[in-house]
Amino acid sequence: MKAQHQISVKAFKAEGFIEKYQRLISETVIPYQYSVLNDRSSEKSHAVQNFINAGKALSGNTNHDGFYGMVFQDSDAAKWIEAVAYSLSNYPDKELEKTADELIDIISNAQDKDGYLNTYYTIKDKEKRWTNLLEGHELYCSGHMIEAACAYFEATGKDKLLKVMLKNSEHIYKVFVTCGHEGYPGHPEIELALLKLYRTTGNKHCLELAEHFIDIRGVDPDYYKKEKEKRDWTVWGNNAEDNNYQQSGMPVRRMSNAVGHAVRAVYLYTGMADLASLTEDKELVSACRRLWESITQRRMYITGGIGSTAIGEAFSVDYDLPGDTAYAETCASIGLMFFASRMLEIDISNEYADVMEQAFYNTVLAGIQLDGKRFFYVNPLEVIPGISGASPTHRHALTLRSEWYACACCPPNAARLISSIAVYAYGENSDTAFCHMFAAGKISFRNGIKMCCKTSYPYDFNVTYKIEKGGKLAIRIPHWSKTYTLRINEKAIEISPIKGYVYLEVSNGDTVELKLDDTPRFIYASSKVPQLSGRVALCRGPLVYCFEGIDNNGDVLSVSLKRNGKVSVLEADKSLGGAVKLKAEAVCIQQTDKLYSDTLPVQKPCTAVAVPYYTWGNRGENQMRVWMNEII
Amino acid sequence: MKAQHQISVKAFKAEGFIEKYQRLISETVIPYQYSVLNDRSSEKSHAVQNFINAGKALSGNTNHDGFYGMVFQDSDAAKWIEAVAYSLSNYPDKELEKTADELIDIISNAQDKDGYLNTYYTIKDKEKRWTNLLEGHELYCSGHMIEAACAYFEATGKDKLLKVMLKNSEHIYKVFVTCGHEGYPGHPEIELALLKLYRTTGNKHCLELAEHFIDIRGVDPDYYKKEKEKRDWTVWGNNAEDNNYQQSGMPVRRMSNAVGHAVRAVYLYTGMADLASLTEDKELVSACRRLWESITQRRMYITGGIGSTAIGEAFSVDYDLPGDTAYAETCASIGLMFFASRMLEIDISNEYADVMEQAFYNTVLAGIQLDGKRFFYVNPLEVIPGISGASPTHRHALTLRSEWYACACCPPNAARLISSIAVYAYGENSDTAFCHMFAAGKISFRNGIKMCCKTSYPYDFNVTYKIEKGGKLAIRIPHWSKTYTLRINEKAIEISPIKGYVYLEVSNGDTVELKLDDTPRFIYASSKVPQLSGRVALCRGPLVYCFEGIDNNGDVLSVSLKRNGKVSVLEADKSLGGAVKLKAEAVCIQQTDKLYSDTLPVQKPCTAVAVPYYTWGNRGENQMRVWMNEII
Repeated sequence: MKAQHQISVKAFKAEGFIEKYQRLISETVIPYQYSVLNDRSSEKSHAVQNFINAGKALSGNTNHDGFYGMVFQDSDAAKWIEAVAYSLSNYPDKELEKTADELIDIISNAQDKDGYLNTYYTIKDKEKRWTNLLEGHELYCSGHMIEAACAYFEATGKDKLLKVMLKNSEHIYKVFVTCGHEGYPGHPEIELALLKLYRTTGNKHCLELAEHFIDIRGVDPDYYKKEKEKRDWTVWGNNAEDNNYQQSGMPVRRMSNAVGHAVRAVYLYTGMADLASLTEDKELVSACRRLWESITQRRMYITGGIGSTAIGEAFSVDYDLPGDTAYAETCASIGLMFFASRMLEIDISNEYADVMEQAFYNTVLAGIQLDGKRFFYVNPLEVIPGISGASPTHRHALTLRSEWYACACCPPNAARLISSIAVYAYGENSDTAFCHMFAAGKISFRNGIKMCCKTSYPYDFNVTYKIEKGGKLAIRIPHWSKTYTLRINEKAIEISPIKGYVYLEVSNGDTVELKLDDTPRFIYASSKVPQLSGRVALCRGPLVYCFEGIDNNGDVLSVSLKRNGKVSVLEADKSLGGAVKLKAEAVCIQQTDKLYSDTLPVQKPCTAVAVPYYTWGNRGENQMRVWMNEII
Repeated sequence: MKAQHQISVKAFKAEGFIEKYQRLISETVIPYQYSVLNDRSSEKSHAVQNFINAGKALSGNTNHDGFYGMVFQDSDAAKWIEAVAYSLSNYPDKELEKTADELIDIISNAQDKDGYLNTYYTIKDKEKRWTNLLEGHELYCSGHMIEAACAYFEATGKDKLLKVMLKNSEHIYKVFVTCGHEGYPGHPEIELALLKLYRTTGNKHCLELAEHFIDIRGVDPDYYKKEKEKRDWTVWGNNAEDNNYQQSGMPVRRMSNAVGHAVRAVYLYTGMADLASLTEDKELVSACRRLWESITQRRMYITGGIGSTAIGEAFSVDYDLPGDTAYAETCASIGLMFFASRMLEIDISNEYADVMEQAFYNTVLAGIQLDGKRFFYVNPLEVIPGISGASPTHRHALTLRSEWYACACCPPNAARLISSIAVYAYGENSDTAFCHMFAAGKISFRNGIKMCCKTSYPYDFNVTYKIEKGGKLAIRIPHWSKTYTLRINEKAIEISPIKGYVYLEVSNGDTVELKLDDTPRFIYASSKVPQLSGRVALCRGPLVYCFEGIDNNGDVLSVSLKRNGKVSVLEADKSLGGAVKLKAEAVCIQQTDKLYSDTLPVQKPCTAVAVPYYTWGNRGENQMRVWMNEII
């Protein structure tokens, strides 16, 4: 049953498209985010100072400026360390490592004797520990720091933070398991983190604690209500009875619909799937399957964005997928990649890897400006300046990326995801190497297989694997590739894929060439999606395209694509980070100011130009639309 | 400049379509609403008991059950009396009049010695009077009771309530003008009411007070902020700094964009236009013109619905007109009719009367179930069961009418509007009779003109005026009637309309026949409206049509209307209150469950059936859509 597990980040050395992004993270995003964490940028985070202050508070020194930021501010520092760890694996950097070591020292000083670690409570009020799991994010912050610890240990071999977090998780184990403190995390995250820690250290308490949090979740659907009644304080006044929002309405094994806060949901499902793969718990596997289908078959944008409503940053109901008011948080798509990657631990199928890739190349990459300096939190599929960001229902749908956010979860999350893309792109088990995504670079599997992947994917659809050390190789054929050719040492071979993967036996020195279908595709949504009826989207390979005003006379609303019209592939556009634009046959309606009119719109043939969705909003404020009108 | 003024409700005796609705109001809606006001229905209002309790409180009797309901609960009783007044004008009913007299006695007992009248404050806390104009609705409730008093006096000649409200308005005059109490109504309404009271009684203080409230509005944009700082209580915690919501950001003469809570806005604009017509204040006229254009040229649904966002029940920004999440409150369209009717007092143009009719025949009538027993507060242009009423962003968009609402402004508002439709349908000045809408019935103008209008409008487009007593007659030619013929005594005449009105000189015994264009029309929205690009609506006469699932195989999302396709007019449907359905050439897409697919949708020709928008939701829960996809 155990299909594959993640490779080490260190095992992969990226080239091409991925390398460019990983260098951007290392050279621009990580330094920038460090300056923010240390309040040296125009944006203030205070995340590092919070740890310094917590250390002082623990030693009885009151000479500090207190806590600043969100209750989960610690997690920004954690995600930064995690991103640094991956970055060090990709590009060793002694100075950066020293900086991270220093931050780890600061963090370790902020840990209480009993193992507790959280600056908000340590600085503000020790007595409030564990009294507000609904909003308090203590377990969430521990989860992120555990992930950072595992990553940093793997990257550097240094175990200081790992020990801190083992002590912290032992403390949490004592509180929740040994002493039976009630409750479970309002924001899931520690579950998946504890399972990482278990995989890293073999510590059984970590597995047991993760299992505990997953198993008791929703068993008492009134838990948060009771918790709220017991306390006299709140962070945001969250509704303790909104069991959807916090995924607490029923035990996890009964869940069928993806509901509530989208990031919380997919972090939980990731933990569930990971646990299911470890324990081979069939009931849990079935729940994960149902939740996966709920998301991908009824509640996901074509961009791999999830959480269609800003109200609660949440999943809505089936087929409610408005483009202009989409929330589609960057973090939620990152979480969806986590979930997909854990589902691949249960079962190898392109159903999972296709979505993982879809989320990555569209929503996750859209979260970062091409220059790495600004970020999207929300990823709408349609933006109309004047309405987007302005109308009360569209306030969250910004037309341009921001330098930072008060709730700064997304930028460091994207940084750690991109710098660790190896673990999503490749997988392995004892004798097989899995190629899930077509990430160019050198790769060495623990099972001995070694190879190099050559490709300019996602803009070139020829992928060549040069095998240095052979073995069993499983290569994904994406569902969108209607046709493909496979050649080993220039000899065409025909193999039927199993659940979207071709399984090969390759030898040292072999060259495997895969040619995927590069034809641009018109995509239609189910007519059950009210907002998309009559609309069409344009895709090529894993990329969803969008139409921006700047390429289309400032007006994409008047453009209708011609059904089955000719689509040409343009040259790579250097001004857009080398993105390849598409040109499609279309008609353009002559704009009229009259609000309603019985005059037939005057239309004339035109050419519409599309850019990859992830590149939108890089050329100033202008209209953007993914789902276009169509003319037959 | 003074173009026309309203006729007396008593001057008109409706026949046909309007009569049916007026009888429904008299026979079903008014008795039902009285039972609610008296808590004799499954729905509880307590509005009458609040007045009884306030009377007790004033006499020191504490043996009562306090105040119940919204802070503006009094206004429901006021609107009921106003509707009763109009109903008595239409259909004299001694018993109903006695009931109303008794309620007026109860209300008059609830008035304090100084003239103050409001049950919320009288029962709960006298000291809080006038301390929360932002949320307190004291002036709003007085306004509605003033309107009721004027209507009841006009209908019955009885002046008890009129005297109560003259005393009340004198009290308010003393507080706000004589004693200089700061502030102006958070919810405009008293302005237009005071002008009615001025027109009814000639009392100059009423005019002066209305002018005062209009003139000081927004002069200090921080007024509500300061007011809030002075008090230690709140009703709903309204944001005192949201100057858009409460139209307090600038003096009214500088306003250009219709903003904020839509009902508040149009009630204010109505008062402004009424004052402008009385005082011939050019600056105020210009402001009204700009606001009118802001609404009708950029912020109004095709149904005459306004206030496109549920957030604040408010106007959004230009061209933001989503159908599925529309708020389009019934009261707001009623207020738009008020505004239109006052603009006709300034200037005769079909621009105003067309919108007045559009709001009436679509949104206002949609507010009432065909049997008069259930009501819509919110009037979306698209309803999809499963999403509408269910998704967090669509919670307000109910799929079926409700028996009552906790905030019960709309049902009694629709009752008073429909029973007084005469004052919108007809107008007069010293020598001319104005026919704004085509309301069948007998009509006697104060200027001596008498006539009878025969028509089955809005389902027949032949309108015959039989002149009993002649004079000058101005008949509106709606903008949607591309062609029309006019005959006097069977002789065709050609007259060029002036701003959409033909002006005739008619004699006793003349028969004037107008034949309007009955061709169904395909309507397109400006391509600046993102939600409507590529869509088409179907209209006939003043009626907007919609497509319901029940007539279209349960699925309107898969239906695309054929551009310029044939539209047939069906027989009147008795099961739908005699509404005339339309049948349009269309194509139907074969539904697919697959969320996204690159397979071309399979489509086949079909016939789509449309019903008038105002009749939607009368046949159980099902899909409804106004703006359809189009196929060329």
